[in-house]
Amino acid sequence: MTKVGIVAYGITPFTREDQKIEAVLLKSTKTLFENNPKINRNTIDAVLVSTNNNSKYLSPILSEMAGIQPKIAHSIESLCNSGTNSIVSAYSYIVSGLADMVLISGAERYDSPGQILEWDNSRGEFKHPIFWASIFTKSYKREYSISDEQLALVSVKNHKQAKENPNALSNKTFTIHDVMNSKKITDDLRLLDCSRPCTGSASILLASEEIAKKTTDNPVWITGIGQKTTSASFTKNISFSTMESTKSSAHAALKMAKHNTKNIDVAEVHDAFSVCEPMALESLGFSDLGNGTSMIKELYETNNFKINPRGGLIGSGHPLGATGIAQTIEITQQLQSNAGKRQVDNAKVGLVHNISAAATSSTVLVLEK
Amino acid sequence: MTKVGIVAYGITPFTREDQKIEAVLLKSTKTLFENNPKINRNTIDAVLVSTNNNSKYLSPILSEMAGIQPKIAHSIESLCNSGTNSIVSAYSYIVSGLADMVLISGAERYDSPGQILEWDNSRGEFKHPIFWASIFTKSYKREYSISDEQLALVSVKNHKQAKENPNALSNKTFTIHDVMNSKKITDDLRLLDCSRPCTGSASILLASEEIAKKTTDNPVWITGIGQKTTSASFTKNISFSTMESTKSSAHAALKMAKHNTKNIDVAEVHDAFSVCEPMALESLGFSDLGNGTSMIKELYETNNFKINPRGGLIGSGHPLGATGIAQTIEITQQLQSNAGKRQVDNAKVGLVHNISAAATSSTVLVLEK
Repeated sequence: MTKVGIVAYGITPFTREDQKIEAVLLKSTKTLFENNPKINRNTIDAVLVSTNNNSKYLSPILSEMAGIQPKIAHSIESLCNSGTNSIVSAYSYIVSGLADMVLISGAERYDSPGQILEWDNSRGEFKHPIFWASIFTKSYKREYSISDEQLALVSVKNHKQAKENPNALSNKTFTIHDVMNSKKITDDLRLLDCSRPCTGSASILLASEEIAKKTTDNPVWITGIGQKTTSASFTKNISFSTMESTKSSAHAALKMAKHNTKNIDVAEVHDAFSVCEPMALESLGFSDLGNGTSMIKELYETNNFKINPRGGLIGSGHPLGATGIAQTIEITQQLQSNAGKRQVDNAKVGLVHNISAAATSSTVLVLEK
Repeated sequence: MTKVGIVAYGITPFTREDQKIEAVLLKSTKTLFENNPKINRNTIDAVLVSTNNNSKYLSPILSEMAGIQPKIAHSIESLCNSGTNSIVSAYSYIVSGLADMVLISGAERYDSPGQILEWDNSRGEFKHPIFWASIFTKSYKREYSISDEQLALVSVKNHKQAKENPNALSNKTFTIHDVMNSKKITDDLRLLDCSRPCTGSASILLASEEIAKKTTDNPVWITGIGQKTTSASFTKNISFSTMESTKSSAHAALKMAKHNTKNIDVAEVHDAFSVCEPMALESLGFSDLGNGTSMIKELYETNNFKINPRGGLIGSGHPLGATGIAQTIEITQQLQSNAGKRQVDNAKVGLVHNISAAATSSTVLVLEK
């Protein structure tokens, strides 16, 4: 089977700027080409745009602005995991032989319409994601006797790590006391427990094995893919303290890559809210059920950047359509030993975990150098 | 290489009804399963939604309503050819091995936001598609000395053919005099020259060769695929009297299928406006440049349904995200000798042509039984 490699990437700082979506999209695409001046735009067969923005025809618009005339051109939306959905789609275009090289550009504005879950009547009045996060937090704390302090450490760790990420929305560090005394949003959540919507974009270029090897000396290969949608409605979740779609996706991705979680050297996990990080670590198999926060504490105390080296969604910001691509870029940089002060020693196998809407759907990718 | 077959479909009547997009989407999906009660929802690996609607997370929502828990689930948008973009994406998931069976559901409301081309500043004030159609009409008439009567016949023919399509928006027939005296929209276009936005949905199920043969006795195979985006802006078109992206797509699709246009027994071509049908016939190779209307006249006078048997977009209506899927269903029915009074004799090879935004992008599919 054709192998698929990541051969180039570009990313913008994540900000609160009020810019047109087209301008945001173009920015990371331009950075990608500036960083890789030898890439011939005529060899790009497909341009996939990942976004929740309501503007139409963004892929042909981006293509025209970037000087590309692709065969395949469309936008992909699946709320917060639009980015990894686009990467998996690009992978399939390449393996199927319909494309040799695919550009994926994800972008979002700080006021993305993907932040309000209008469609889910099972949420009643509580359509903002903070309400599912609040129920997850209450349920997870009760189920495993977890304290507010233990969860607050997620935010402390990820803000600390984001300080080494020049593109992160946040460049401040906080103490457990700061997190626990930040503005109360719901009974269960404080402001610093939440990732923040922002403006930003991230672009990545995938190619078939043959083209990848011609394009770069250090391609990173996508060796495992797992995806699962269990439902759309929050209340159809089997559990409010585990991520069932993540379990299924991780199983499939690790099986495909012929690895298990122990082999993973570095991972980006979807910490939209602080409770998500320990839940994800447990559902991905990094930790036993209920022990995610212990793992986080150990990582923090040993200054180990293994989980969410770029600062996660909490530290980096969460421009929905760009997030999964930004996560994949971070793991690519880690595997290329190109992550600066965030570098995890001897990283050979990495994992990306990206969810939507209370983990009703998940994507897991395994990357290798 | 894995072959990909169409194994089931469902379609709704195209109407002007004011229904929620989720309800519209579900309707054709339900019809698909009702028509094919043996299909096991657990074997569906991916659910792709084709739409320009602004609602988010529609694929997981449709999946939950339809009792499916797919691996892959997202929406795809590329204005008017969202439907065939989704079919090509589904094809690639199957050939790549990531999926064995993929459901594609397209839906739109009559008030779709895809009808206004907000983004194209090269259009000046003229953001509605009637303005590019108007320029196409003026240019095509001048270039090839074509009369209003010759173009009006497209609408006459397609309304006549739509009368045999129980799902068509229109069930009226018109004379050339009726078309030429219908309400004037621009200097170049009358109301009956235009396809009309409407509410409707169309669903189709694709499967790998092995699964297709187990699922149905008469699968229709996708043997040719061609896609091209030349630009997003209307004014970047090289010509206003040919469709350049269609030429390129047709060449690729026919080459892949090892056919030429002479072998095509039946075709759906994208007649968003009357001028589009002769332009498409010429760019697809059915007719020499400037002779498209002569071919249409001959087909009309011999009661030959070869081109746009279901009545095209002008007769059937144009629910953007559903259109490419509805076109593909029509060709499937033709190849299965299941098209009732619209049946073209001895149809073995069919073609689907679907464009967006003044043919700045095109998809061409070749289907065979």
